[in-house]
Amino acid sequence: MGSNQESTNDTNRLETFADGVMAIAITLLILEVKVPDVEGGKLATALAHLWPSYVSFVVSFLTIGIIWVNHHHMFKLIARTNHAFLMLNVVFLMTICVLPWPTALVATFIRDPDGRVVATAVYGGVMTAIAIMFNVVWRYASTNHRLLGPRFSDQALAKMNRNYLAGPIVYGTATIVAFGEPYVSLGIFAALAVYWLLPGTGPRAQVLTERS
Amino acid sequence: MGSNQESTNDTNRLETFADGVMAIAITLLILEVKVPDVEGGKLATALAHLWPSYVSFVVSFLTIGIIWVNHHHMFKLIARTNHAFLMLNVVFLMTICVLPWPTALVATFIRDPDGRVVATAVYGGVMTAIAIMFNVVWRYASTNHRLLGPRFSDQALAKMNRNYLAGPIVYGTATIVAFGEPYVSLGIFAALAVYWLLPGTGPRAQVLTERS
Amino acid sequence: MGSNQESTNDTNRLETFADGVMAIAITLLILEVKVPDVEGGKLATALAHLWPSYVSFVVSFLTIGIIWVNHHHMFKLIARTNHAFLMLNVVFLMTICVLPWPTALVATFIRDPDGRVVATAVYGGVMTAIAIMFNVVWRYASTNHRLLGPRFSDQALAKMNRNYLAGPIVYGTATIVAFGEPYVSLGIFAALAVYWLLPGTGPRAQVLTERS
Amino acid sequence: MGSNQESTNDTNRLETFADGVMAIAITLLILEVKVPDVEGGKLATALAHLWPSYVSFVVSFLTIGIIWVNHHHMFKLIARTNHAFLMLNVVFLMTICVLPWPTALVATFIRDPDGRVVATAVYGGVMTAIAIMFNVVWRYASTNHRLLGPRFSDQALAKMNRNYLAGPIVYGTATIVAFGEPYVSLGIFAALAVYWLLPGTGPRAQVLTERS
Repeated sequence: MGSNQESTNDTNRLETFADGVMAIAITLLILEVKVPDVEGGKLATALAHLWPSYVSFVVSFLTIGIIWVNHHHMFKLIARTNHAFLMLNVVFLMTICVLPWPTALVATFIRDPDGRVVATAVYGGVMTAIAIMFNVVWRYASTNHRLLGPRFSDQALAKMNRNYLAGPIVYGTATIVAFGEPYVSLGIFAALAVYWLLPGTGPRAQVLTERS
Repeated sequence: MGSNQESTNDTNRLETFADGVMAIAITLLILEVKVPDVEGGKLATALAHLWPSYVSFVVSFLTIGIIWVNHHHMFKLIARTNHAFLMLNVVFLMTICVLPWPTALVATFIRDPDGRVVATAVYGGVMTAIAIMFNVVWRYASTNHRLLGPRFSDQALAKMNRNYLAGPIVYGTATIVAFGEPYVSLGIFAALAVYWLLPGTGPRAQVLTERS
Repeated sequence: MGSNQESTNDTNRLETFADGVMAIAITLLILEVKVPDVEGGKLATALAHLWPSYVSFVVSFLTIGIIWVNHHHMFKLIARTNHAFLMLNVVFLMTICVLPWPTALVATFIRDPDGRVVATAVYGGVMTAIAIMFNVVWRYASTNHRLLGPRFSDQALAKMNRNYLAGPIVYGTATIVAFGEPYVSLGIFAALAVYWLLPGTGPRAQVLTERS
Repeated sequence: MGSNQESTNDTNRLETFADGVMAIAITLLILEVKVPDVEGGKLATALAHLWPSYVSFVVSFLTIGIIWVNHHHMFKLIARTNHAFLMLNVVFLMTICVLPWPTALVATFIRDPDGRVVATAVYGGVMTAIAIMFNVVWRYASTNHRLLGPRFSDQALAKMNRNYLAGPIVYGTATIVAFGEPYVSLGIFAALAVYWLLPGTGPRAQVLTERS
C-alpha cells in the first residue's frame, strides 16, 4: 500500500494546522501566569515572588518558538505527505500541546523541596517526548527519501539525522539530572533555549549552509 | 436558487477557518488537565491519581487529529462551496468545539460509580454527533456530485459513503454500551483512536488508493 | 492622503487574521460551559440544570459562524485595503471577541428574575454592536466603490446596503425587547441564528444570485 | 555564515505564525473580563463596577490590533528571512503574548491606591518591551537592506527608523509617568491607541505615501 498512498504537493494544509496548534500552545502559556490575590500594598512583593512563573513561561515559550522554527525548516525539505506522516505529526503536536501543563507544574512546585523533583522530571519528560517525536517525524519522512524533494545527498541527510538526534539526548540527559538536581536540570533547559536562539546554532543552520 | 448560488474554487477560506477551529479545540484540551493543589510531598501520588485526565486528553486529542486528517482528505475532493455547505460545516465545527467539555466531564467523574455512566454517555453522544455531522457534510457535497471535482466514479463515491458511515455506527454503538459498561465504552473510543492512527486504516486510505 | 494610501491585492492577510480571531472567539465559547461540581449521583440533574449554558453556547456559536460566512462573502467583493479599513476591521473583530462574556452572563443569570433583564440587555447590546460594525466596515469599503473590485452596479450595492442594514435593526429591536421580555428577546436571537442558517436566506444569497 | 543562511521568498509561514499568535493573544484578552459572582438584583451595579476591565480590554485590544497592522505593513517590505530574524520575531511575539496578564493586573488593582502604581508600571513595561522588540525586528531586517526587497531609498528607511522609534519613546515615557501618576499614564496608553486608530497617523501612513 505504501507508496500509492502518497499525495504530492500537499504539505500546505499540514503546515497551516501545525502552525495553528503551535501558535495556540505558545500563547496559552501566559494563562499559567496568575494575577496575585493580595492587597495592593503587597502587590510588588507578590509579583517578585512569582518569578518561577516568569522563568518557566520564557523557557517554554522560547522552546516552542525554536521547535516552530525547526519544523518550518524541516518542511522546506518535505515535498509530500501520506496518512502515516499526518498521523505522526498529530502525535508530535500532541506532545507540544501538553507543555503548558508541566510549565505550570514547575512554576507551582519549584519552591517546594519535595515537589520540585517530580515537577521538573515531568517537565523534562514532556520536553524529551517532544524531541523524540520531532525525530520520529523527520526519520519517517527522510528514510529512503520517502517524502523529500529531490535536492539532498545521503551525506547531508546523515548529517541532519545526527544533528536532530542531539535534541532527545540533551533533553533526556537534563531529565535524568532532574531526579538529583532539579535546579541544574531547569538551568540546562533554559540554557538550551537561549543557545538555540543564537544565530548559527542548531541543526538548521548546517542544513541551510548545506543548501547554499 | 440551488446551483446559481454555488461559487467555484472557493474552499480555501473554509479550510483555513476549519483548520483554525480544530487547531484551537485540540489545543484547549490541555486546559482540562489541572495542576494538583497539594503539598510537594504528595505531588507524585496526586499526579498518578490524575490518570483519567491524561487518558481522556489523549483519546480526545487523537480523535480530533483523526477528524482533521479526514476533513483534510475530504476537501481534496471538494471543488466548490455554497451557503448551505458553509453552514453545515459551521454546525460540524460546533460539535468538535464541544469536545473539551465532555472530556473534562469524563476525567472528573470516571472514578465515581454513579457519575461515570452519565459522563461517558455524554462523551459518546458528542462523539456520535461529530461523526454524524461529518457524514452530513460529506453527503451534502457528494450527492449528485454537487460540490465535487470531476474525478470520481459513482462506485468510488458509494464506497466512500459506506466507509464514512462506519463512524456514526461504531461511535453510536459505543455510546449505547456506555449506559451499561462505561469502561468498555471508553475502551472502544480509545481503541478506535489508536486503530485509525495506524497506516492503511479508515475510509481515507481506500479513497487515496482509489485515486492512485 | 486618502487614495494614495490604498494598496492593491492585499486583503489576504486581513482575511487570515480575521478568520483566526473568529475561529478563536467561536472556540472559546465552550470554556463558559462548566463541569458541575456535584457528586456523581446528581450529575444528570446538574447537567440538565445547565441548559441555559447549552442554549447560549449554540446561539452564540451559530451567530459567529453566520458572521464569518458573511464576512467571507463580503471579502469576495473587496479588492484592496487601506489603513482605515484595517482599523475598522480591528474594531469589528473586537466586538466579536467580546461575545463569550455576555454569553456567560446570560447563562449565569437567565434563571434569576432580577439579573435576567440586565444580562440579556448586555448580550443584545454586544450583538447590536457587532451588526453595526459589520455595516460600518461594509459601508466604508463600498462607498464610491472605494475598495471594491470592478464588478458591481450601483443598484446591486444599494440592495446589499439595504440587506446588511437588517442586522442592526433586528438585533437592536431584540435588545430593546430585552428590557421588558428577556425570554422573548433571547428567542429572537435564537430564531435569527437558525433562520440565517437556512439555505437561501440573508443578504449573501441575493448578492451571489446577483453575480451569477 | 551570515548571508548564505538567508532564504528567499520565505516570509509567508512567519507571517501566518505571527498572525496566529497575535490573533490568539488579542482574543484571550476577553477571558480577563469576569462574570460577576453576585445576586441578580446587584448585577447592574456589579457590571458598572467592572469598568476598569472594559477599559483595559479595549486599550489592549486596540494596541495589539495596531501592532498587527504595523507588522503587516512592515512585512510588505521584507522579502526574505533568516534564522536570527525568525528568532527575533519569536521574542517579539513573546512580548505580545504577555499582554493579557498586565491587562488583568491593571483591571484588578486600578482602584487600589497602593497596587495601582505597580500594576500600571508593569503594564507600561510590557508595552515598552513590545515597542522595543518591534524596533529590533525592523532594524535587524533593514540594516544594510539585509532582508528588504529592492524598492526603498536610504532616505525612506531613515524616515521609517525615526517613525518607528516613536513607539518605545512614548511608551517608555508613559511608563515612567506611571510611577507618579498612574491614571495619567493609562490615559496616555488609551490616547495612543485611539490616535493610531485614526486614518493617516503613525509611521505606516508615511511609508505608504512614500511608496505611491
